[in-house]
Amino acid sequence: MTTTAPSASAGSTQPGTPEHWVLTLSCPDRAGIVHAVAGALAEHGGNITESQQFGDAETQLFFMRVQVESTASREELVAALEPLAETFSMSWRLDVVGRPVRTLVLVSTAAHCLNDLLFRQRSENLPIDIVGVVGNHRDLEPLTEFYGKEFHHIPVSKDTKAEAEARLLALVRELDVELVVLARYMQILSDDLCHELEGQVINIHHSFLPSFKGAKPYHQAHDRGVKLIGATSHFVTGDLDEGPIIEQDVERVDHTRTVEDLVALGQDVERRVLARAVRWHAEHRVLLNGHRTVIFR
Amino acid sequence: MTTTAPSASAGSTQPGTPEHWVLTLSCPDRAGIVHAVAGALAEHGGNITESQQFGDAETQLFFMRVQVESTASREELVAALEPLAETFSMSWRLDVVGRPVRTLVLVSTAAHCLNDLLFRQRSENLPIDIVGVVGNHRDLEPLTEFYGKEFHHIPVSKDTKAEAEARLLALVRELDVELVVLARYMQILSDDLCHELEGQVINIHHSFLPSFKGAKPYHQAHDRGVKLIGATSHFVTGDLDEGPIIEQDVERVDHTRTVEDLVALGQDVERRVLARAVRWHAEHRVLLNGHRTVIFR
Amino acid sequence: MTTTAPSASAGSTQPGTPEHWVLTLSCPDRAGIVHAVAGALAEHGGNITESQQFGDAETQLFFMRVQVESTASREELVAALEPLAETFSMSWRLDVVGRPVRTLVLVSTAAHCLNDLLFRQRSENLPIDIVGVVGNHRDLEPLTEFYGKEFHHIPVSKDTKAEAEARLLALVRELDVELVVLARYMQILSDDLCHELEGQVINIHHSFLPSFKGAKPYHQAHDRGVKLIGATSHFVTGDLDEGPIIEQDVERVDHTRTVEDLVALGQDVERRVLARAVRWHAEHRVLLNGHRTVIFR
Amino acid sequence: MTTTAPSASAGSTQPGTPEHWVLTLSCPDRAGIVHAVAGALAEHGGNITESQQFGDAETQLFFMRVQVESTASREELVAALEPLAETFSMSWRLDVVGRPVRTLVLVSTAAHCLNDLLFRQRSENLPIDIVGVVGNHRDLEPLTEFYGKEFHHIPVSKDTKAEAEARLLALVRELDVELVVLARYMQILSDDLCHELEGQVINIHHSFLPSFKGAKPYHQAHDRGVKLIGATSHFVTGDLDEGPIIEQDVERVDHTRTVEDLVALGQDVERRVLARAVRWHAEHRVLLNGHRTVIFR
Repeated sequence: MTTTAPSASAGSTQPGTPEHWVLTLSCPDRAGIVHAVAGALAEHGGNITESQQFGDAETQLFFMRVQVESTASREELVAALEPLAETFSMSWRLDVVGRPVRTLVLVSTAAHCLNDLLFRQRSENLPIDIVGVVGNHRDLEPLTEFYGKEFHHIPVSKDTKAEAEARLLALVRELDVELVVLARYMQILSDDLCHELEGQVINIHHSFLPSFKGAKPYHQAHDRGVKLIGATSHFVTGDLDEGPIIEQDVERVDHTRTVEDLVALGQDVERRVLARAVRWHAEHRVLLNGHRTVIFR
Repeated sequence: MTTTAPSASAGSTQPGTPEHWVLTLSCPDRAGIVHAVAGALAEHGGNITESQQFGDAETQLFFMRVQVESTASREELVAALEPLAETFSMSWRLDVVGRPVRTLVLVSTAAHCLNDLLFRQRSENLPIDIVGVVGNHRDLEPLTEFYGKEFHHIPVSKDTKAEAEARLLALVRELDVELVVLARYMQILSDDLCHELEGQVINIHHSFLPSFKGAKPYHQAHDRGVKLIGATSHFVTGDLDEGPIIEQDVERVDHTRTVEDLVALGQDVERRVLARAVRWHAEHRVLLNGHRTVIFR
Repeated sequence: MTTTAPSASAGSTQPGTPEHWVLTLSCPDRAGIVHAVAGALAEHGGNITESQQFGDAETQLFFMRVQVESTASREELVAALEPLAETFSMSWRLDVVGRPVRTLVLVSTAAHCLNDLLFRQRSENLPIDIVGVVGNHRDLEPLTEFYGKEFHHIPVSKDTKAEAEARLLALVRELDVELVVLARYMQILSDDLCHELEGQVINIHHSFLPSFKGAKPYHQAHDRGVKLIGATSHFVTGDLDEGPIIEQDVERVDHTRTVEDLVALGQDVERRVLARAVRWHAEHRVLLNGHRTVIFR
Repeated sequence: MTTTAPSASAGSTQPGTPEHWVLTLSCPDRAGIVHAVAGALAEHGGNITESQQFGDAETQLFFMRVQVESTASREELVAALEPLAETFSMSWRLDVVGRPVRTLVLVSTAAHCLNDLLFRQRSENLPIDIVGVVGNHRDLEPLTEFYGKEFHHIPVSKDTKAEAEARLLALVRELDVELVVLARYMQILSDDLCHELEGQVINIHHSFLPSFKGAKPYHQAHDRGVKLIGATSHFVTGDLDEGPIIEQDVERVDHTRTVEDLVALGQDVERRVLARAVRWHAEHRVLLNGHRTVIFR
């Protein structure tokens, strides 16, 4: 694990007004980390409002998320934290609590997840800023525009896939996108794109992974006669349906349910699970621990 | 599907006192079944207290469970139902509501499922009669005897497996066992035994099947970083962990949980799921629909 | 319980094409009801696809819901059922499976329940036809119109309440409304209106009733320090928050949650619970049993 | 809030072997607490393995739980923490992780909660030491003795209540009891006893409080027609059923359930909820925040 420069993000710089900061970090576990970090924050008059730590006995890694109110500027805090980051070989990130994360949503034809994210962003303080919606079909353009967002139609066929991904990546760069959400986007991203956007792409899979990987999970679930169906939100990696899991949930079903029923019921679980994953990520509550996640709820 | 003679089981034969009967049946779906069955029961003054039907549009099979109070004798009811069973090619079964099902519990060293079944049988009207407990280890003998049940020690090794299964089968015959429960019994039954006892053996698997089949599911779950662990109760067939699922449930876990924690937490789900499956089976609420189940709860 | 003429609703009358009917009934419990009903349906070549019964030992009432495919006309079925209804003193209702129930949604300013109903109607086969939305504020007019529905602004003040309710009732009559849904409508209906629309108005209350009746339930829940918050959907009667409960659900919370958090989290439970209640009602799965409900799911 | 001397409890004193300590504290919220505590622990070479903080914006109180491995003796740690406790006006407590809490269980005739606690203590690492069981009836004496625990029969009648409570309190003193669990103990403790044992008595109430306070909650729940039943574990105070809530959970029920069914189903929820509350308390995860609780899970 190497020292990582903190990406993002300017807080308000009005002197005297305290800003609410969130610091996340991970590093090899050893004595003194909490004390050192708390000390660096205390030096700048920071009052810790929320803090969680976790030491993984197996991987010997340490994870921390701390919210702190401080009148110090971003530069001052970074200057105070950088030496610690070096000493402890930290990956770290400093952001302002509640700052909306610039998010691009990718969709195909199913509306439930997109509708949910748009609605929650407007009405439930989901801290994301949906800077655009990309669809390989045009079905969800009206919904997108009703919420005042820009819709980008990027069709994908076997022949145009490379070109489509290039357009997508250009859009990510141009719109300064921090988070890409696959909201039932029925295309598989290429390995290159997965690698390029590692840790920034969240998918919703319509099964309780690792059960029913791949296509038509509700058909598989129906055929197996399971008594609960589920959904899984995970980071996208080159390994299809194998990325680190962020959140899962299930819904009870019974023998009377057809495949179509499962699909309809599943929409509820899918959107709930995806919304939670996106919220936790946008609130900097999700840290990577190898191929698993630490979630500081 | 062929006509099946109703197995089990004598109701009280005091004339004039109504008995509470439960009839379960399945057959190819066609018009008139409910009417015919309700008619046969009505002829004997039977008052239907609970009734459920299900027609599977896919398999074209019809399933029914009906509870009826009637002063008719078992013989009279059988005589009334047999012609219908022939007409409609029914598999059927007539029993007395609440009659305890003669049950043999197989265990190894883990006590939680056995303890739960023994306790529920005594205190919660679980309608089973535990006629014996078989262990390949002696660890659970004291618990068994505290509840006044007989413990049979049948050790199993690679060399003695065939002999052990023969002893087991003999016990099943001798004790007139109707249901065998594998309560964390850490031995795999042979194909022959599975076949011999088909539809009469219920297992609890310590994962949310079909995830994490095979050995050490909690280790697999921990390694995959799932956010819910589960348990599955199913009928045992020759296909390991592939038998028809009766019940499943899950418990939320997070990144702080070690494998040992999952094992401990899982015990709660396992015993809950197994107890439900055994109860529903003993109440004749579980019908087979190919490799899936119909559960009339 | 008196015999009730079946309200609703014309099925397709093309001769020869089977229609899928749903019959619901309740009456004093006695022997022979199932047989008689199944017989009347069988006479018209009806194939029963789903059927559930329940006899309440306490109230001595019997409840039944049956789906049947038949080529008979509505008139023929009514003619066959009316004599039974008289004999058994049934309240009954015959409708076509899946016929959208004409629904009026009442709202104030909170969008989550309305958004959910509009979305599910369009995308998830929720069998209602939203014939209009009434708001005492104009906030939800754009959302309503995006879904192509008509918005009626009926403001309510202390002085205009009687007049507003008269307008509402006129609208109910004019639009031939079968179901009124209070989707976080922050006005209390008068006793007269409750009586007038008895059994046709469904409300969502933002607490796990009977806890936290009345105003500001999330404030009450926060103050009491509960570990689960909930929502309750119920029929509206003159007794505020005391009508028959249709559905309830809960969400886990912890000590870190502020009242504002509970409000946001609660929105999820509210819309889920309301959607289920509306669906079951629209599918004729909800029957009244005094001040309680029978739900044939 | 005044400074509280740390009660409990000697760790191993073998020099050189690190001990695993758990420190819990609460105090008025202000800057610098985490830094000061982490500093005091770091001075003694303590490695923090788990830590959680919470600042209640409403009550302006700060809560902290930290687990630390250190070779320092108890005396050394106390000496390091006492000045901080004074400076910050802390209530605090230092204990050894996993030390079994000396627990007295009070019962009447219902076995399910006692059976569960005895079983979990033996098989699931529930960190309590059940030093005795008190029953106002003798029904649970055999179960108690099967687990090798001493049973004390203290009958209670209207006339002997004062005397019975005196015997109970004497037993608490004599056995050095730290925690009293009311495991479906059907007697109401007097105000004096509640006061005497404040914060040390945990009860399980068989409803989802604050619904259905008082007697016969399942009857009340059945009559109200609720769709979920629940159980609540809480600290016992002089206000009956009003003490700070530790844990709650629910189970789905439907119209077919009789009161007797609710009682049986409820047993499952009750024992699960009580076991969690006892575990969290014994692991020092439960802190009082006025009439609410902070649970560091």
